[in-house]
Amino acid sequence: MSEKTEKRTDVNDLGEFGLIDHLTKNFSNKNKSTFKGIGDDAAVIDNGKTYTVVSTDMLVEGIHFDLMYTPLKHLGYKSVIVNLSDIYAMNAIPKQITMSLAFSNRFSVEALEEFYEGVKSACDRYNVDLVGGDTTSSPKGIVISVTAIGEVEKDKITYRNTAKVGDLLCVTGDLGAAYLGLQILEREKQIYLSSPGVQPDLEEQSYLVGRQLKPEAQKDMIEGFKKVDLVPTSMIDISDGLASEIFHICKQSGVGAFVEESGVPIHPDAELMAIKFKMDPITCALSGGEDYELLFTIDPDEVDKVKYIAGIYIMGEITKASEGIKLHTKGGNIHPIKAQGWKHF
Amino acid sequence: MSEKTEKRTDVNDLGEFGLIDHLTKNFSNKNKSTFKGIGDDAAVIDNGKTYTVVSTDMLVEGIHFDLMYTPLKHLGYKSVIVNLSDIYAMNAIPKQITMSLAFSNRFSVEALEEFYEGVKSACDRYNVDLVGGDTTSSPKGIVISVTAIGEVEKDKITYRNTAKVGDLLCVTGDLGAAYLGLQILEREKQIYLSSPGVQPDLEEQSYLVGRQLKPEAQKDMIEGFKKVDLVPTSMIDISDGLASEIFHICKQSGVGAFVEESGVPIHPDAELMAIKFKMDPITCALSGGEDYELLFTIDPDEVDKVKYIAGIYIMGEITKASEGIKLHTKGGNIHPIKAQGWKHF
Repeated sequence: MSEKTEKRTDVNDLGEFGLIDHLTKNFSNKNKSTFKGIGDDAAVIDNGKTYTVVSTDMLVEGIHFDLMYTPLKHLGYKSVIVNLSDIYAMNAIPKQITMSLAFSNRFSVEALEEFYEGVKSACDRYNVDLVGGDTTSSPKGIVISVTAIGEVEKDKITYRNTAKVGDLLCVTGDLGAAYLGLQILEREKQIYLSSPGVQPDLEEQSYLVGRQLKPEAQKDMIEGFKKVDLVPTSMIDISDGLASEIFHICKQSGVGAFVEESGVPIHPDAELMAIKFKMDPITCALSGGEDYELLFTIDPDEVDKVKYIAGIYIMGEITKASEGIKLHTKGGNIHPIKAQGWKHF
Repeated sequence: MSEKTEKRTDVNDLGEFGLIDHLTKNFSNKNKSTFKGIGDDAAVIDNGKTYTVVSTDMLVEGIHFDLMYTPLKHLGYKSVIVNLSDIYAMNAIPKQITMSLAFSNRFSVEALEEFYEGVKSACDRYNVDLVGGDTTSSPKGIVISVTAIGEVEKDKITYRNTAKVGDLLCVTGDLGAAYLGLQILEREKQIYLSSPGVQPDLEEQSYLVGRQLKPEAQKDMIEGFKKVDLVPTSMIDISDGLASEIFHICKQSGVGAFVEESGVPIHPDAELMAIKFKMDPITCALSGGEDYELLFTIDPDEVDKVKYIAGIYIMGEITKASEGIKLHTKGGNIHPIKAQGWKHF
C-alpha cells in the first residue's frame, strides 16, 4: 500500500502488436499438442486427427463500440462475427464459442436479452454452439470477451507466414465501407448531441452503416474454397485495414507485395461517401478497419479455381522482400504502403 | 438514438446462474462435436479419441479484485489459477490458455510486465502454454478474461450431475481461509485509508492472506487420482463457497447430502481469525469463496484409494433428494444448508 518512484513506459510507445510481443517474449510452449501459439489469427492445437483452432477477442464500450448508435442486438451479433472471422482466416470451420460479459447495473435483463438475441442469431446463421461463458457486473460500461473454437483438416490449414514470391494477392470482398459507415454514425451522433430534436436519416446509407454495425464473416468463401479444392498459400482476416494485414503477411512470410489500386474493390457507396467526407477512397480501403473480409494468396497455377467463386478479387502479387510493399496507383505512380491499422491505444 | 419507455427487470432479480439460464434458454447445440455445453465447470468437445474441455472466466477491477492490496503479479497468477481450477474440476489436465486484457492508460508497460510475470509463473508451474489473447485499452480499470483448454480421456471425465446416493462427499483441502484473508485485507485497507501513515502488518496472517492473493489449483490431486486409478463420481471446484457447490452437485444430480461439521477442514489460523472477526468458522467455510479446492464424491467401495492421497477430507455423504442438504453440527443438531455463494450482482 505504498507508492514508489519507478520507471514508467507508456504503452503507446510500443503499440498493440509490439506490446504483446514484448509481454510474451519469455513465454515458451511446453505441451506437444500446442502446435502454434501466439502470432496468427488463431492458436493451433493438435488433436491427432485434426487441428483445433482457438481465437479470442475483447470488445470494450467506449473503445470498440458506442451504444449511442449500436443496437445491443447488433452488438451481440458482431461480437460473435469478429471471432468467427479469425477462425475462417485459418481456413477452419468454427464450431463453438464461449461468451463472457461484464456489465454495469444500467443494463436491464431486457437489454441483455436483446444482446443475446444477436448472439443467437449469429450462432444460428454460422452453425456455431454457445458452450460456456461468464456473466459478471462491472463498475461502468460493458465488456465482451468471446473465444471461438474451430476445426480444420491438417493439410488445409492456412497461416500468415507462408506466402511465396509470385503468389497472387486476393480479397473476398470490398473494403473501406465499414470505416465510412462509422464516420456517418459519428457525424449523426454529433448532430444529435448538438440538436437532440433532429432524427438521423441513415436510410440511403444502409450499405455502409450495415457494414459497420452488422458485418458478416466469410463462411461462404471457406466453403467455396473447399468445393473447388483450393487451399490459399496464406490467409489473414482484414480487421485492421488492408495495409496493416498485407504488412503482417509480408513480414511473417519474409516477402514483399504490390497492390494495383485498380484491383482494390471499393463499393460505389463507399467511393461516393469518401469523396463527400473529403477522403481518398483508396486510403479508406487501405487504412479503414472492420471489413472482416479475408486477405489471401494463391499459387498462380490455381488462378482458374478462384474464377468459380463469386466475389473474389485479385488485386496484386507477392514479390521479393527487397521490393517492399507498394501501391501501383491508377495514375501510374508507385507508392510505398505503410502499415496503419486501427490502434486502440 | 431515441429512448423509449420499456419494461425494466433488474438483473438482481435473477442472480448470476438464473441470469445465464434465462439468457441462454433458447440456444441449442448443433454440432456433434459439442458433447456438453453450458452447465458444468467447463464445456466438453469430442475430438474422437479424447475430450477437450474449455472454461472461461472474467475478472473485473472493483468487482473481483482491489488493486490497493493486490500486487499485479499475484493478480496475473490468480487469473490463470481460477481457470485451471475449472479444468481440474473435470478431472482434465489443462494444456493451453488464452489471456485477454483491457486496461486504462494509468497502467504502464512496467505494470503490465509485472502482471505477465505472474501469468508466466502460473503457466510454468502448471505446465500450461499461453497460446493467444488480446490486449486493448479500457476507459477505466482493468478487465481480464482467460480461457483455459484441457484434455481428458473419455472414461475419466467428471461432471456435476453424476453423484449417487451413498457416495462419500470429499474435499481436497481446507475451506474459509481465502474469505478470511480477504476480510483482513479489507480491514487493513480501511485502516490505511483513514491513517495513511500506518503500514499494515500482515506477517502473522501469511497463510490466510496467501490463500486469498495467491491461490493454487489442484494439479497434485488430479495426478493423485490418476495414480491410484480413482475417478470421482462427480466433481466441482469450490470457487463460490462449499454450500453453493454442494447445492449445484445435489440439484444437478437429483440427490441430497449431509455434511458433518466436524469433517469440514478449517485451518487453525482461519478458525482463530473467524472468532476474532466475530464470525462462525463453519459459516466462513460454507459461504466464503475463492478457496479453489475441489469438492467431489466417490463410491464408498473406493474409500481405500483416497487414503493414499494426502490432504483429502471425507466430510459427508450423498443422500436421497427428499432428505435435502443438511449440516450435522458438532453439537448434534441438524440444519438445512442454504446455497449462499458469492454474488457479484
